[in-house]
Amino acid sequence: MRDVRHIAVVGVTGYTGFELAKILLRHPAVEKPVFYVRDTNGAKCLSELFPQLRGWGEAPLRPFSLDAITASKAATAFLATPHEVSAEMAPALLETEMRVVDSEAVYGLPELYPEKIAGARLLANPGCYATSVILALRPLVDANLLHADSSVICDCKSGASGAGKDPRRDLHFVELDENFKAYSLFSHRHTPEILDHTGLREEKVVFSTHLLPVARGILSTIYVTLDSPQSPEAVELLYRKFYAGRPMMRVSSAGTLPELQHVAHTNFCDIGFALDNAGRRLILVSCLDNLGKGAAGQAVQNFNLMLGIKEQTALQ
Amino acid sequence: MRDVRHIAVVGVTGYTGFELAKILLRHPAVEKPVFYVRDTNGAKCLSELFPQLRGWGEAPLRPFSLDAITASKAATAFLATPHEVSAEMAPALLETEMRVVDSEAVYGLPELYPEKIAGARLLANPGCYATSVILALRPLVDANLLHADSSVICDCKSGASGAGKDPRRDLHFVELDENFKAYSLFSHRHTPEILDHTGLREEKVVFSTHLLPVARGILSTIYVTLDSPQSPEAVELLYRKFYAGRPMMRVSSAGTLPELQHVAHTNFCDIGFALDNAGRRLILVSCLDNLGKGAAGQAVQNFNLMLGIKEQTALQ
Amino acid sequence: MRDVRHIAVVGVTGYTGFELAKILLRHPAVEKPVFYVRDTNGAKCLSELFPQLRGWGEAPLRPFSLDAITASKAATAFLATPHEVSAEMAPALLETEMRVVDSEAVYGLPELYPEKIAGARLLANPGCYATSVILALRPLVDANLLHADSSVICDCKSGASGAGKDPRRDLHFVELDENFKAYSLFSHRHTPEILDHTGLREEKVVFSTHLLPVARGILSTIYVTLDSPQSPEAVELLYRKFYAGRPMMRVSSAGTLPELQHVAHTNFCDIGFALDNAGRRLILVSCLDNLGKGAAGQAVQNFNLMLGIKEQTALQ
Amino acid sequence: MRDVRHIAVVGVTGYTGFELAKILLRHPAVEKPVFYVRDTNGAKCLSELFPQLRGWGEAPLRPFSLDAITASKAATAFLATPHEVSAEMAPALLETEMRVVDSEAVYGLPELYPEKIAGARLLANPGCYATSVILALRPLVDANLLHADSSVICDCKSGASGAGKDPRRDLHFVELDENFKAYSLFSHRHTPEILDHTGLREEKVVFSTHLLPVARGILSTIYVTLDSPQSPEAVELLYRKFYAGRPMMRVSSAGTLPELQHVAHTNFCDIGFALDNAGRRLILVSCLDNLGKGAAGQAVQNFNLMLGIKEQTALQ
Repeated sequence: MRDVRHIAVVGVTGYTGFELAKILLRHPAVEKPVFYVRDTNGAKCLSELFPQLRGWGEAPLRPFSLDAITASKAATAFLATPHEVSAEMAPALLETEMRVVDSEAVYGLPELYPEKIAGARLLANPGCYATSVILALRPLVDANLLHADSSVICDCKSGASGAGKDPRRDLHFVELDENFKAYSLFSHRHTPEILDHTGLREEKVVFSTHLLPVARGILSTIYVTLDSPQSPEAVELLYRKFYAGRPMMRVSSAGTLPELQHVAHTNFCDIGFALDNAGRRLILVSCLDNLGKGAAGQAVQNFNLMLGIKEQTALQ
Repeated sequence: MRDVRHIAVVGVTGYTGFELAKILLRHPAVEKPVFYVRDTNGAKCLSELFPQLRGWGEAPLRPFSLDAITASKAATAFLATPHEVSAEMAPALLETEMRVVDSEAVYGLPELYPEKIAGARLLANPGCYATSVILALRPLVDANLLHADSSVICDCKSGASGAGKDPRRDLHFVELDENFKAYSLFSHRHTPEILDHTGLREEKVVFSTHLLPVARGILSTIYVTLDSPQSPEAVELLYRKFYAGRPMMRVSSAGTLPELQHVAHTNFCDIGFALDNAGRRLILVSCLDNLGKGAAGQAVQNFNLMLGIKEQTALQ
Repeated sequence: MRDVRHIAVVGVTGYTGFELAKILLRHPAVEKPVFYVRDTNGAKCLSELFPQLRGWGEAPLRPFSLDAITASKAATAFLATPHEVSAEMAPALLETEMRVVDSEAVYGLPELYPEKIAGARLLANPGCYATSVILALRPLVDANLLHADSSVICDCKSGASGAGKDPRRDLHFVELDENFKAYSLFSHRHTPEILDHTGLREEKVVFSTHLLPVARGILSTIYVTLDSPQSPEAVELLYRKFYAGRPMMRVSSAGTLPELQHVAHTNFCDIGFALDNAGRRLILVSCLDNLGKGAAGQAVQNFNLMLGIKEQTALQ
Repeated sequence: MRDVRHIAVVGVTGYTGFELAKILLRHPAVEKPVFYVRDTNGAKCLSELFPQLRGWGEAPLRPFSLDAITASKAATAFLATPHEVSAEMAPALLETEMRVVDSEAVYGLPELYPEKIAGARLLANPGCYATSVILALRPLVDANLLHADSSVICDCKSGASGAGKDPRRDLHFVELDENFKAYSLFSHRHTPEILDHTGLREEKVVFSTHLLPVARGILSTIYVTLDSPQSPEAVELLYRKFYAGRPMMRVSSAGTLPELQHVAHTNFCDIGFALDNAGRRLILVSCLDNLGKGAAGQAVQNFNLMLGIKEQTALQ
């Protein structure tokens, strides 16, 4: 019999999986988390794999097998596995009575689709860049304020943990330290997500990505043209209203801008803006922790909604 | 009698002044550099003020006075002083037979105005952000390739040395380390320079600035729309032709992008680009060292042109 | 009437005070924290001063006055003020029925003096360097294992937040980034604390301090000679026994060493070691977060002991 | 016929080899450098492999073969190859008339063995840690000032480029950023070098190594006890006399200490110290750039001595 207090976490060796472990280990609605990895190297509990968890991470670690998971009591499976692996595993898990966080189906952006998420059994966790861009643009899209003929430019910068944990030449400390660069221009795999959830046409959006010499965080600077002149007060009010009651969204007062340090190690998405004197050209600044609101934290926020408990549980 | 091998450097205590000192101390055409500061604190030579110069920085240090400078043999004065001070000092120095680098008058961008600089006696050193943006845009402007109705978005990121050496709360290591933020949106003092030297109208240009957690370097990501579809080869060729014979400019091959580390501690400006499939939307990436090509190095490059020697002298 | 759920926090604008605020705002035994600062700048709640606390830091902020604090219901006062200010304030607060954390009197090192702390009304919070060194040496001292004639060398390295928040030339990002240096050799103010709580004679201890280019953390490498040859297993056992039941202490297994990232943003002190083949020369590595176990976290751990609740409350 | 202006550099893809290339490309006594690598990937010149060298690194790149090197005119071969490869290659090269820098035989520490180096044909380049420690200790050793019964503790810290360029989990940016740790305690491969060139017995020396979150630089803090009380002036004088005429050594004045930034990107070794009031306990601080004086720069300094030109040529 499945028990909501039991969960299975698959793949904990990457940065997102590890962050997920840290949140779930102190989540009050989770009593029996079990962690599955391809290769346990003989370890029996999580803190043998990650010595920094000694003293609070004494959860069981097991070699991964679909049979073991389906035979367990877990009511929810978190997949922190590569896309191909998740895609293969999800259908089998859904055939049992489990809920699955990751993959496809309902898009797990709690600020936009809270009801759908609450009723979902299979949940796709949004990309980190996409989350920062979509949350910044949606209030303008829904209010029909974007000028139809103007481009939307999304200049996004991410810390290194967003690129994953596998050793790679360009992620060597010496290569990234004191460095900064653009990458994947006109070819980033998050572009379709952004188009899908903003309704913008591909030829109107330019999305660029850069690598920052920091461990965590994404800051997106987004340039739009408004359809009609607005005051800073009106823009601030629009965002405040749109995100009223959403505990993980913080709108900066006109005249102040969010910064990376304010969201690092949190599950907040902070949004601020600057408007030109004519009230037509608007720069949005959206920032979040790519491992928090951009990955593991957002997965837990979705899990909370699925369980019907406060969405910020274990995230503050 | 003035002697071209003698120079006076005023203000050496800031980051730009110190960088200037390091270049001039090994410049083959400079034999007698004398450094002037407001307060010598009893020091008589540069290495007493900067112990890291011991062994190669044994040049005289003197308390600043206009009389002392004009009475010296120096044929050129470099002003690494705050704008107000430079503005006051320059006219007095010009009344003697000295050349002056800094302030107003001829705009010292060697790649664009080499002849004017060679004949100038008073030279304004461009801003670091402005240099990176103007050098990226001018080939397109001069070729009439920019779409008239589209905006030009300049998303610029700078290391901390660009903000000066005075201790400030937001430049404290703890505040900037692992941080990243936008600042001075729609209000940066370099905007007029950019408009002046690209010929673009103010309402068509958006220029934003961000602070990177690195010591040195500026990387500008610039978004433009072209008037007619172009191939990557044509864009690359345009830039290569425009900067042919300019030793401090490096154009990246189509498909590769410049990065900060490649220009740090150099006087190069590297420019690369990415073009969308339709050949209309172009992203330019321009990068340089804000203390090198963005300040002290550029000042020396101008000095070289004024002297009629190779412009890269002492800059490689 | 004083109420244990009410506390007063004096001085929240420095790094330690801010860290303290973050912990106390989510402490389950704290219901009414009030924050006092010299100058509120018109702010009425904490998040107006620190925008990064929006959404979870809505506690009242008041201009500091001894009368206001003594007139409040607070049963405990935390002083995150400069030494001189604390020394002046503590006696006045003790005359009311408040408990005071900071200053002199009982030395608040919970792992060594838990009973004294539980009964104390005035509590001195140990220095961050001293905590890391004393906790590493005490098991050897108490077991009489240190060779009497040999020196104890403590080579300590700290992140920049340990140097305080005031803007200073040597804490400017550009000065510390990619830098590392020793400071205050033979003259650091923490030396007497170390001697007092290890019982070592001054001429036997060398204590050096260095500044690391990181925001948080202290790592001390300590070199001792043992009185008799030991096995790694015996050393590990000694430490495990000494710290058995102390939830904030983690002893590394022989052959592994602690590292800064494992303790950053936690209240743990991690201790590991390496022993030479002869079993006589021992290198201890002790590490903690200077703002956590080295300052704000330790203050809360003491507060918990004073209240008679679990010492790790709100610290995990 | 061999020509001293021709050199062969073998292995340029690691950090040391690349640094070596940058120095040799602007060395006035080097006219024809040829670079050899195992796999050229089709590149014909250095700047195709390293785009950051465009504009000044247009030297030929060739696939490595012993025949090609011996058939060339090169009079000197620099080996920036792994130890095993160097050991195999050196004898073959010595059979021709070439000089070889790397491997065994004469120990290439120019400040200690200038005459031997000048006459050598096979030269071993010292380790980076060993250089910093040996140069700090030798003046005391040669003056018989070390107390015979006391230990010498060498607490050394290095930047990440010292660990090589191969992608490794512990050198991933995210793992090293904001981190600091000790490694290889009692087992570092540089220990024998230190004993050999200081004459100290193994049981008297403790040598520890740590990894700093910076790209370049080594700082060693060394603790010794003196045989007789000394004044700071006497210690400073001892070091100044010992290194008189050695252009790459800089002794700090009593009361000031060297720091990493002052030697980064240079070939200097800076040495400073602090003495306790009794004049018996001495802390030495020695620092250098691990890729400069600790590797590539030192190799060129040796090359200069072999050629009979100024040892600092191309190193300032």
